[in-house]
Amino acid sequence: MEILFTFVPKEEMQQSIIAEFPDADFHFIYKDKSKLPTADIVVTYGEDLDAEDISNALNLKWIMVASAGVEKMPHSAIAKRGITVSNVRGIHKTPMGESVLGHLLAIKRSLPEIYENQRNHKWERKLRSSELFGSTALILGPGAIGSEIGRLLQAFNVLTIGCNRSGNQADYMNEMISFDELVAKLPEADIVISVLPSTSDTNYLLNLEHFKAMKKDAIFMNFGRGDFVEDEILIEAMKNKMIAYAVLDVFEKEPLPEDHPFWGMDNVIISPHISSKSGKYLERAMEIFRPNLRKWLDGDKEPTNLVNMEKGY
Amino acid sequence: MEILFTFVPKEEMQQSIIAEFPDADFHFIYKDKSKLPTADIVVTYGEDLDAEDISNALNLKWIMVASAGVEKMPHSAIAKRGITVSNVRGIHKTPMGESVLGHLLAIKRSLPEIYENQRNHKWERKLRSSELFGSTALILGPGAIGSEIGRLLQAFNVLTIGCNRSGNQADYMNEMISFDELVAKLPEADIVISVLPSTSDTNYLLNLEHFKAMKKDAIFMNFGRGDFVEDEILIEAMKNKMIAYAVLDVFEKEPLPEDHPFWGMDNVIISPHISSKSGKYLERAMEIFRPNLRKWLDGDKEPTNLVNMEKGY
Repeated sequence: MEILFTFVPKEEMQQSIIAEFPDADFHFIYKDKSKLPTADIVVTYGEDLDAEDISNALNLKWIMVASAGVEKMPHSAIAKRGITVSNVRGIHKTPMGESVLGHLLAIKRSLPEIYENQRNHKWERKLRSSELFGSTALILGPGAIGSEIGRLLQAFNVLTIGCNRSGNQADYMNEMISFDELVAKLPEADIVISVLPSTSDTNYLLNLEHFKAMKKDAIFMNFGRGDFVEDEILIEAMKNKMIAYAVLDVFEKEPLPEDHPFWGMDNVIISPHISSKSGKYLERAMEIFRPNLRKWLDGDKEPTNLVNMEKGY
Repeated sequence: MEILFTFVPKEEMQQSIIAEFPDADFHFIYKDKSKLPTADIVVTYGEDLDAEDISNALNLKWIMVASAGVEKMPHSAIAKRGITVSNVRGIHKTPMGESVLGHLLAIKRSLPEIYENQRNHKWERKLRSSELFGSTALILGPGAIGSEIGRLLQAFNVLTIGCNRSGNQADYMNEMISFDELVAKLPEADIVISVLPSTSDTNYLLNLEHFKAMKKDAIFMNFGRGDFVEDEILIEAMKNKMIAYAVLDVFEKEPLPEDHPFWGMDNVIISPHISSKSGKYLERAMEIFRPNLRKWLDGDKEPTNLVNMEKGY
């Protein structure tokens, strides 16, 4: 059994995996695809495989994506071959939940102004601090990450409204709506957070009509994918102060171009696609991979967090 | 019955109080003490009464302090006269809990660096973000505010250790210790938060020995009172990087002098004593005052949140 990692974990982690599975043959190689033709399993961040790679990978039966997004993978090539795909859905929930709550509390409790005043050695107590307490949050995509955000928000006495395609119940949501009901519900929300994946249902789902429906003091956070809303629409919404703040972790084009208007807008906060990052990432990904690999070697070919390549999540 | 407010709430709030208690005679006057001699009840922020005022206030039977701190009040003059004192302990818990969590999450999730990089139009993904998840927090003063902080921290999977004089159990603390056990326990804490009031037991309780006992990557937060630790000790601790961060909402001298070394220290965050502030403050104080006043007028002279003037809290 040949297992190809297309990234290189720390030496210590490599040794620990090799020691745990002495019968498997591991390769940890970055950007070199020479081992693809013989690999049975590929572990990847999901951004380095194209249709040609899939056709070259003659033995490939399982792709473990050490990430949540699979939109850069060659879906139809993989689906056609019936290759199993799994991801690490859910391990992002802790750092992302903390980032989302951190940004919200920072805005409510005037942290940007506090830092700015310190830089100017200025003791200024007249800040417009407010509270998260008693707010209403609308969470687009209440899956593992969205529900974790919901759980944390509820601890701060925030009412949570989940929004997905079906409107079916999700964890830690006081209420659920479907995409069709979004525009009608937006006027109730103080906070609108998207953690939606990129799929044909969510691509450019949000348009100007949605921003017009939001409260003037609403905070919009895109922590899902950059193609959820066009930059041009967001720029128009924020220039015209249709809402109070946009906190963006994802963008149509990443890195965000140097001359992009977002950089200089004081009601836009730019988080350079790092909200899921924390030192614990790969460690947690391996905690999902290892038992799955054990099962796979024992003949159970259904790893947890299976991804349906046709649906895209 | 004459009721003197030594501050002036918004007109709307004044009218609503007057309408609720038509038999009482209200005065809302800032800095003018001419009504003190005839006042039966004084509602104050607790910073504008001295011993002479108390001796002039011949009819005074109840001081309602619309704040938590009573250390600037003339304790013995009030105690001698047997004047009832109550405060609004607990209404600070929501904004303070949100400020404490906001600062902690901001540090863990690299918000100061994110803001700084945006100012420089710099897309930088190599930040040392970490997580609150799995940390241990030591909370000095687990009363209404400290327990609220404990509740929120537990929602982020933080282990909470409460510390007070007695070591008696408090809400939302996984463990309790007394002041005597503090030095021995500090090496376990990733976060040390004081929300202690200023009393003879807590005055300058913290010294260099405590900072030496803390982890090198610990975060210390003083959100209680500025006389919990000498500036000089904190400056020495932070200059020598004995710990990673100090987040200070209170100071020995406020406003913090313009030339104070704290301003320029990049491991010190200066919050200008605003962590309890939010637009909802006075509204909540009145929600405590009004039922207490109703009871008082009905002959029940035991308002909630009684303060023992001899103990000082």
